Amino acid sequence: MKAAIFRGGDIVVDTLPEPVPATGQARVKVLACGICGSDLHAAKHSHRMVEVSRRIPGRIPMDLDRDVVMGHEFCCEVIDYGPKTEKRFKAGTRVCSMPVMLEADGPKGMGYSNTYVGGYAEQMLLAAPLMLEVPNGLPTEHAALTEPLAVGVHAVEKGMLSGDEAPLVVGCGPVGLAVIAALRLKNIRPIVAADFSPKRRELAVKMGADVVVDPAAEDPYARLAPGKRAAVFECVGVPGLIQQTMEKAPRDAKIVVVGVCMELDTIEPMFGIVKELNLQFVLGYTPEEFARSLRLLAEGQVDAPSLITARVGLDGVRNAFAELANPERHTKIMVEPWRS
Amino acid sequence: MKAAIFRGGDIVVDTLPEPVPATGQARVKVLACGICGSDLHAAKHSHRMVEVSRRIPGRIPMDLDRDVVMGHEFCCEVIDYGPKTEKRFKAGTRVCSMPVMLEADGPKGMGYSNTYVGGYAEQMLLAAPLMLEVPNGLPTEHAALTEPLAVGVHAVEKGMLSGDEAPLVVGCGPVGLAVIAALRLKNIRPIVAADFSPKRRELAVKMGADVVVDPAAEDPYARLAPGKRAAVFECVGVPGLIQQTMEKAPRDAKIVVVGVCMELDTIEPMFGIVKELNLQFVLGYTPEEFARSLRLLAEGQVDAPSLITARVGLDGVRNAFAELANPERHTKIMVEPWRS
Repeated sequence: MKAAIFRGGDIVVDTLPEPVPATGQARVKVLACGICGSDLHAAKHSHRMVEVSRRIPGRIPMDLDRDVVMGHEFCCEVIDYGPKTEKRFKAGTRVCSMPVMLEADGPKGMGYSNTYVGGYAEQMLLAAPLMLEVPNGLPTEHAALTEPLAVGVHAVEKGMLSGDEAPLVVGCGPVGLAVIAALRLKNIRPIVAADFSPKRRELAVKMGADVVVDPAAEDPYARLAPGKRAAVFECVGVPGLIQQTMEKAPRDAKIVVVGVCMELDTIEPMFGIVKELNLQFVLGYTPEEFARSLRLLAEGQVDAPSLITARVGLDGVRNAFAELANPERHTKIMVEPWRS
Repeated sequence: MKAAIFRGGDIVVDTLPEPVPATGQARVKVLACGICGSDLHAAKHSHRMVEVSRRIPGRIPMDLDRDVVMGHEFCCEVIDYGPKTEKRFKAGTRVCSMPVMLEADGPKGMGYSNTYVGGYAEQMLLAAPLMLEVPNGLPTEHAALTEPLAVGVHAVEKGMLSGDEAPLVVGCGPVGLAVIAALRLKNIRPIVAADFSPKRRELAVKMGADVVVDPAAEDPYARLAPGKRAAVFECVGVPGLIQQTMEKAPRDAKIVVVGVCMELDTIEPMFGIVKELNLQFVLGYTPEEFARSLRLLAEGQVDAPSLITARVGLDGVRNAFAELANPERHTKIMVEPWRS
């Protein structure tokens, strides 16, 4: 089968053997898989990512001398199952899944793995028990937005907000937009959203932001609803942003760090101390949040179509990684591996 | 009156005019004032402290070209009151107070101020409404421990623990010891405490630690009670400690940053992200926590005598600052300005 492979620090299209499902696994055809900002980060900082993974017990670092097929925001179609595996959905059924394979000694990630191929391939394996059927009427590419939406839903849940906070979303890339959607769904408002890009600010409004701010022209923190505890969602994930947030946030703010900064970062703890800030780092989502996100998309509660700005085949993945650097042009690019 | 003054980066003993109480203020004689680690930090990093204060709205930075009298852990005796001020306690009454002066436009700190003299002086001013009477039978120098105990009480409160966490206290200086006492009072156990100093570990046991660990010999994180959420109290406050804590803490840990690091610090956000850590920075205490701490000392619920390792007059402050660098010899040194 064909796949867009992360190999030698670059993305190349090549042929891989078709995956063979083991017990508990399903083999699926990838219908659509969104490109995630984390994939761009991982491609750029792969050695750093490996080094950090090595220092965290339980994480399996990628071997960069071997092939990795990324892609963890997928909607697929069931082909067949491994031996002795309950056939929960018949062949041809569209499914989503958390990008996790269940193994005897615990779950293993997909998409940054040498073992499990991600969604930038014609076929992949899923953990059969984790598959969720895509409801009729929900377009495939919208179902593929389940994963990034779940990231936003989880960030808001993990932030343990009372519901009476004044939210500010810093950075309106796909993660920030998902957070805005999740805040709106919980009616935690008014939602202030900040991004340098006019296109991203426009999308922020579509996702439910009440106030959008260009930080080059205006201080977004000045627009926080007064008299409430601030909840700042850092959705950029580059060095310096945590410190900037700590420096700008008002007293007693909750800062939810959703952006994934893989580099070293410098902070001045005094700003956290004198303002008694709370930093909640978040990652991923629970199975319940993932299932809820699929349901929210099926119910049309999130303006999914606005987020998708292009569709490419496997040959277009490499260029799409480069294109995504331009926030005016692209938000979410869908890889459709069947597209020639 | 005589005072130990922070002047030109050094501590010198000199004469200052006696303070004159304004409306709402009391003039008091300082009976005892503990030397706080923050005073050592402030003396060492005074320019840095000023620079950070300047960047935080509402903070009034010290002018280092003018005199500062530090000391914010005091027990005093009422002398007299300013005009039109309710005489809540008669002259000679022993009182404690939060080191805060109430002004029309909000509270102002004492001890790192050019306006309000701290406790390393024969006399000082207090905000009359904030004074708390020291109960009969509570020794003056124990009452002077109210402030540092309140720091520990507040850290545990602000940590928002459910009570079922596995606590680890990193660093058993006065702040760490106060946290241990506060954890014990809330029965959040078993309490693991780590310090390189044998003397400090011995004090940790006296304050209520269940397990003490020399980090040079053993990993304190390995002693965390299993199956519970970890609550790690960082009570050291030097660069590198936050990152070390983030790197060592187990998944989903709460890290309460009680140590005051005034310098730049480097972190690797990825460790926070993959383990979804929560960092709560804390500072100070509420009036209720301060009053509760005085009560706890009066009830003999904290082994206060163990903490006090020396008493000095104003002439001894300069040397005491240097002596406190040795954790084997000293924990809390009391300044008794009336001592010749």
